[in-house]
Amino acid sequence: MGLNMAKNLIAAGYHLQVYNRTASKADELDQSSITVCKSPSEAANGVQVLISMLSEDEIVKETVIGENGILKTFPAKAVHISMSTIGPDTAEELAKLHEAAGSHYIASPVFGRPDAAAAKKLFICISGNKQAKEIAMPVLEHLGQRTIDFGDKVGGANVVKVAGNFMIIASMEMMAEAFTLAEKNGLDRAQVADFFGSTIFNAPIYQNYGRLIANKQYEPVGFKAKLGYKDARLAVKLAQLSQTPMPAATLAHDRLLSAVAKGWGDKDWVEGVARGVSEDAGV
Amino acid sequence: MGLNMAKNLIAAGYHLQVYNRTASKADELDQSSITVCKSPSEAANGVQVLISMLSEDEIVKETVIGENGILKTFPAKAVHISMSTIGPDTAEELAKLHEAAGSHYIASPVFGRPDAAAAKKLFICISGNKQAKEIAMPVLEHLGQRTIDFGDKVGGANVVKVAGNFMIIASMEMMAEAFTLAEKNGLDRAQVADFFGSTIFNAPIYQNYGRLIANKQYEPVGFKAKLGYKDARLAVKLAQLSQTPMPAATLAHDRLLSAVAKGWGDKDWVEGVARGVSEDAGV
Repeated sequence: MGLNMAKNLIAAGYHLQVYNRTASKADELDQSSITVCKSPSEAANGVQVLISMLSEDEIVKETVIGENGILKTFPAKAVHISMSTIGPDTAEELAKLHEAAGSHYIASPVFGRPDAAAAKKLFICISGNKQAKEIAMPVLEHLGQRTIDFGDKVGGANVVKVAGNFMIIASMEMMAEAFTLAEKNGLDRAQVADFFGSTIFNAPIYQNYGRLIANKQYEPVGFKAKLGYKDARLAVKLAQLSQTPMPAATLAHDRLLSAVAKGWGDKDWVEGVARGVSEDAGV
Repeated sequence: MGLNMAKNLIAAGYHLQVYNRTASKADELDQSSITVCKSPSEAANGVQVLISMLSEDEIVKETVIGENGILKTFPAKAVHISMSTIGPDTAEELAKLHEAAGSHYIASPVFGRPDAAAAKKLFICISGNKQAKEIAMPVLEHLGQRTIDFGDKVGGANVVKVAGNFMIIASMEMMAEAFTLAEKNGLDRAQVADFFGSTIFNAPIYQNYGRLIANKQYEPVGFKAKLGYKDARLAVKLAQLSQTPMPAATLAHDRLLSAVAKGWGDKDWVEGVARGVSEDAGV
């Protein structure tokens, strides 16, 4: 994900200070346009804008406030565009820490898989300090097809992202149940998926995941079940914090928790959901 | 629904023998193109093709095998196109009774509300005896935008319809939970609905129901909660008969059962689902 985003920024003419835990990731980038850094603090040194794309709340926190974290060197007035899928509570916490240090933190989680990032087809949700968002906008234009502003409260975009990933997991559960019902009643899963994906459910989620679920095609792994489980946990936690009973989110959570429990954490989240539904039905 | 379909058949040049429990429904039709009948058996007398569109399994059965039912007069080789949303078990039973009487029964449930019927925009799912389907096809062409054949086993199309209505209810539940989560976290429900409906969930179900759910706009009543509850019951029953655990269908069932329990049976099914989610969250 980060690699494809870096390529687009380089193509747009930016010089990047890049950091990844796996340093060799940078080998694919045009070396004359990058400076490979050994830590987040080195990457943050002297920049006006910093983009982070990481896997979960604790890792984002460590990257910001850890021993070699961003805040060690981040210039005053610089803007940290945080694109990871994390909870709004973490976003609020990190925004306060940036503010205390004289810099800015905005939330910019995205919808789209790595191929969408490569094609600049991401949908980017942003929220946070207004001036910081204005500085971020010209950078984000090189990464996505549309940027949607969810207000000045920094966690807003994270709420939308958490809600959206919950809806994706719930959609996969729904399709897996419907197609398994069809299969057990003698119908062709693929025909049923194609019918719904081309009529009342003709949206990318139903067409793309629908095809994978119908064909029980679980490879290559695009997004790991353990990361989907992390997103489901974020949804349930947010439901608890805001006192919003969400039985469908609880169901999505338990489905992916079961996938992890069965040892499928590194398999695709489609497998985590759909194979779980199939196994429950003895097929 | 039936009225709009009758208008399209009359416009296509058919003369109809019409029957409805509320006889005055026929007043809106071109009187020179219809014969108003006093019972299903009178409407079935002498026809080659008969279309039924009724609310539930028991009523369809009564209409077929009751004292003044279709089979009393239905000619040999005539085709009964059954468009109601009923279970495949009922369809199999009725197909056998027709077969014993020398006539045919095919399943042809539809996706689309009455306005879609008026505009010939229905999606029609058919299944059953091959020759009978061939006779039905030219008639169905005047009613929908697409007819999809789910095989020769008569209940196939009913399985697809039951699965589809389950997916619609589950989608409403999912949206209501997501938008309520957004609302309780300080976001604008309508903005969130518009974002998802124009990006990764850009399908009619999410756009149309999404707008109603976001705005808590529950009137006018398009489809009653008690009929949605009937559809959820069909899904759970079919899950049981075919041994397919469907936790999302159980959740959809309980949501609409609760709506009926709260006295909302005659309200729109969108209200049945979305107001239930809101009330659970104290908003």
